[in-house]
Amino acid sequence: MAFDKVSRADDYSKWYNNLVENADLAQHSSVRGCMVIKPYGYAIWEKMQAELDRRFKETGHENAYFPLFVPKSLFEAEEKNAEGFAKECAVVTHYRLENDPENPGKLRVDPKAKLEEELVVRPTSEAIIWNTYKGWIQSYRDLPILVNQWANVVRWEMRTRLFLRTAEFLWQEGHTAHATKEEAFEETNQMIQVYAEFAKTVLAIPTIMGTKTESERFAGADETLCIEGLMQDGKALQMGTSHFLGQNFAKAFDVKFTNKEGKLDYVWATSWGVSTRLMGALIMTHSDDEGLVLPPNIAPIQVVIVPIYRGLEQLEQISTTIKPMIDKLKKRGISVKYDQRDTHKPGFKFAEWELKGVPIRMAIGPRDIENGTVEVARRDTKEKQILNLIDIDHKIEHLLSAMQEEIYLNALNFRDNHITLVNTWDEFVDVLENKTGFVAAHWDGTAETEDKIKELTKASIRCIPLNNPKEKGTCILSGKPSRERALFAKAY
Amino acid sequence: MAFDKVSRADDYSKWYNNLVENADLAQHSSVRGCMVIKPYGYAIWEKMQAELDRRFKETGHENAYFPLFVPKSLFEAEEKNAEGFAKECAVVTHYRLENDPENPGKLRVDPKAKLEEELVVRPTSEAIIWNTYKGWIQSYRDLPILVNQWANVVRWEMRTRLFLRTAEFLWQEGHTAHATKEEAFEETNQMIQVYAEFAKTVLAIPTIMGTKTESERFAGADETLCIEGLMQDGKALQMGTSHFLGQNFAKAFDVKFTNKEGKLDYVWATSWGVSTRLMGALIMTHSDDEGLVLPPNIAPIQVVIVPIYRGLEQLEQISTTIKPMIDKLKKRGISVKYDQRDTHKPGFKFAEWELKGVPIRMAIGPRDIENGTVEVARRDTKEKQILNLIDIDHKIEHLLSAMQEEIYLNALNFRDNHITLVNTWDEFVDVLENKTGFVAAHWDGTAETEDKIKELTKASIRCIPLNNPKEKGTCILSGKPSRERALFAKAY
Repeated sequence: MAFDKVSRADDYSKWYNNLVENADLAQHSSVRGCMVIKPYGYAIWEKMQAELDRRFKETGHENAYFPLFVPKSLFEAEEKNAEGFAKECAVVTHYRLENDPENPGKLRVDPKAKLEEELVVRPTSEAIIWNTYKGWIQSYRDLPILVNQWANVVRWEMRTRLFLRTAEFLWQEGHTAHATKEEAFEETNQMIQVYAEFAKTVLAIPTIMGTKTESERFAGADETLCIEGLMQDGKALQMGTSHFLGQNFAKAFDVKFTNKEGKLDYVWATSWGVSTRLMGALIMTHSDDEGLVLPPNIAPIQVVIVPIYRGLEQLEQISTTIKPMIDKLKKRGISVKYDQRDTHKPGFKFAEWELKGVPIRMAIGPRDIENGTVEVARRDTKEKQILNLIDIDHKIEHLLSAMQEEIYLNALNFRDNHITLVNTWDEFVDVLENKTGFVAAHWDGTAETEDKIKELTKASIRCIPLNNPKEKGTCILSGKPSRERALFAKAY
Repeated sequence: MAFDKVSRADDYSKWYNNLVENADLAQHSSVRGCMVIKPYGYAIWEKMQAELDRRFKETGHENAYFPLFVPKSLFEAEEKNAEGFAKECAVVTHYRLENDPENPGKLRVDPKAKLEEELVVRPTSEAIIWNTYKGWIQSYRDLPILVNQWANVVRWEMRTRLFLRTAEFLWQEGHTAHATKEEAFEETNQMIQVYAEFAKTVLAIPTIMGTKTESERFAGADETLCIEGLMQDGKALQMGTSHFLGQNFAKAFDVKFTNKEGKLDYVWATSWGVSTRLMGALIMTHSDDEGLVLPPNIAPIQVVIVPIYRGLEQLEQISTTIKPMIDKLKKRGISVKYDQRDTHKPGFKFAEWELKGVPIRMAIGPRDIENGTVEVARRDTKEKQILNLIDIDHKIEHLLSAMQEEIYLNALNFRDNHITLVNTWDEFVDVLENKTGFVAAHWDGTAETEDKIKELTKASIRCIPLNNPKEKGTCILSGKPSRERALFAKAY
């Protein structure tokens, strides 16, 4: 393993990059800002997809697919949305290459194949989808429309980092249409709850649910709800958003419906999404200096078994002994890998599976076979214990459940220790610099102050938590009156 | 239902288009040549994906994800491949829009944001993937690489048809790397078998497996295997391909490995794919003038239940009676929809589910409740029967299996009746024009004759079947000697 080891304490950013590359999760590609998601990383993403997709369907949504390209004239229809994304979009201008007469064997863009109207590679799909919904909606009977799309999107980011910020990324985007404002808002709220529950139950990541300030809102939304996680370096990460779009897109694309009273009205909309960014959140919440730590519920391999042997005869004896155990584990829905590669030594295998974050490693040698035991090592705490093989599948199932809970509790504890209430500017700056994490402070509610604070400290308002107590105070910067605290943090 | 009814006999092409749109499978979008896959159509595609993905994993493959964009310099590296796709690719030349000073509220391409190197939107991913594999492969220990990708691709087709030929489509593309030619060829063969088995078992479509002629081969392949289906109008449809790429891409991207003997050699490659085109094949193989006919194994809804009632009390009585039946059907893994919409009459519902191809429709009214029976209608044969509710789940399960087999047998019978052996040019032309279907005829093996036949009859060589008998003869056009028959047809 050519693992260029850097500890989190030494250089968190380098530690992250090394981990992503060395644990075979993703790598940079030859295309500026675009990543290759490697099979092991993609297997984790597939588990996220399956868990999310099930939740979307359980809440009544269906999947569909809309075009990758958005004609410029549609893209610019909802002005705020267009303005928000215009500066970072890939634009298709031609539909053909031709042989380059000056460079034999090379190609060049065929100037005769210029598109009449440029096509934007979707940075998000509200425009193309609402242009389509126009044809689907006449009456309240056609509502609600509850549709989700799994897709790739492109935003031309200048500074990219694997999973966290890439020019192309994978995501899902829900786009719903409703007859009433109340129903649309209920949907917006429901989906942020779905994300929070998924983050907690599957990824073992505690999140704070809240409302974005106007300046942090999605371009084109009337309200943006979000879930924010806290990474080990004390920086926040926005993990998912759910937007109440009001009637903005319905107005931009002229989507009206006849309501129950027979009157025409514009349709109400929401959109909501999470992306491969969640991979970054997962890595940065739980992993350690030895590599990835995966909560069992998201691990593609939950148990790896490494035989310790000399010679083929011993290997065969081990393989025969553990075969029934493997079958029993699989029957319980536990994913098991038996690593009997003869090209690598046990020590190498231990390090590799540790790096890849497999929750439980079993090692079994001739003495274990004699004793009817197996050595079981936990990835999270690195504790080892010798377990009797009797009912081992039952024990492993419980151990995995316990690990899932403990990993969550550790993250929750870290997060809760990093929410600090401050009442003065000096405290605010001090906590951000030294303790890090979320800082709950009074703010006067203006974008001007928000900007100034960001400029001075690099901290932004992550959200106004949904369960925020109403508490009067004075703004830490302007000294003006405030009705509640906002949650600040430096963020990814 | 505003179903503009056209029969297959009257206008097959219009019948197809109407069916796709009216059964809510897909529709044209505002983007030239790009389609919207609607929820019902996408649900069928999701079932295809799940069935294929399981088969890929069972044969040792893993999923991964590679960039949407291919830099022009990589795209042109494998010359034949580049030549094959250069004339139909979307090209990104800019990465930003700006406000158009001449048209307030409008955007235009920002000339300052021109890319140094143009990016091709992938028409297929060999180039970007082999450029990546170069970094993954040093020794035979790194082989084989068995990777698949689910993705969207873009080919700028001038004449598009929903599902059959669209500028953007969804597909999977397997890309494997091997140490030996034999192993790569074995993989090529294995995957076409996987496709054929899937087509038969899940889609109930019989296919002919064969080898493409040189002129019909994938650009960059040494050999292309394919499965060909036969549509009801007697035209063939290529449903899947598996390519033996030799060392062409390894040479273009300089991907060498140290073999077991310690010598450097180029890596051997395959690629294989099926796409949303399979939706077209599914529709055109089984459907009738009333709409879609879905084999049970691919139907998102296998059983629909329509209550026949007057007043809420009757509806409630029916709902209560059938609740245990619905539960029992679901327990057997059968997908059931209970259509209790009060906005539509039973007749409307019958027509809608018929149009959407749901295999079994149950109707249940007060008299059925009294008698302990239900009316069961098959979509394929339109037969109706009254069944006793005792063990109804068991009966439905068997009926679905029987329907799956019968639908396949019907398609097989039609296909086999449309393979005609001919020995003269006149016969050849006559069969193509009047009987239609596949024509097995002797061909001299030259691209020249192949082209001429296509020009004269619009029929192409679909494949040389894998199990083709070696049989000497004379070419139907040139009269030159031939060693075996080729399978001709007009095709989509």
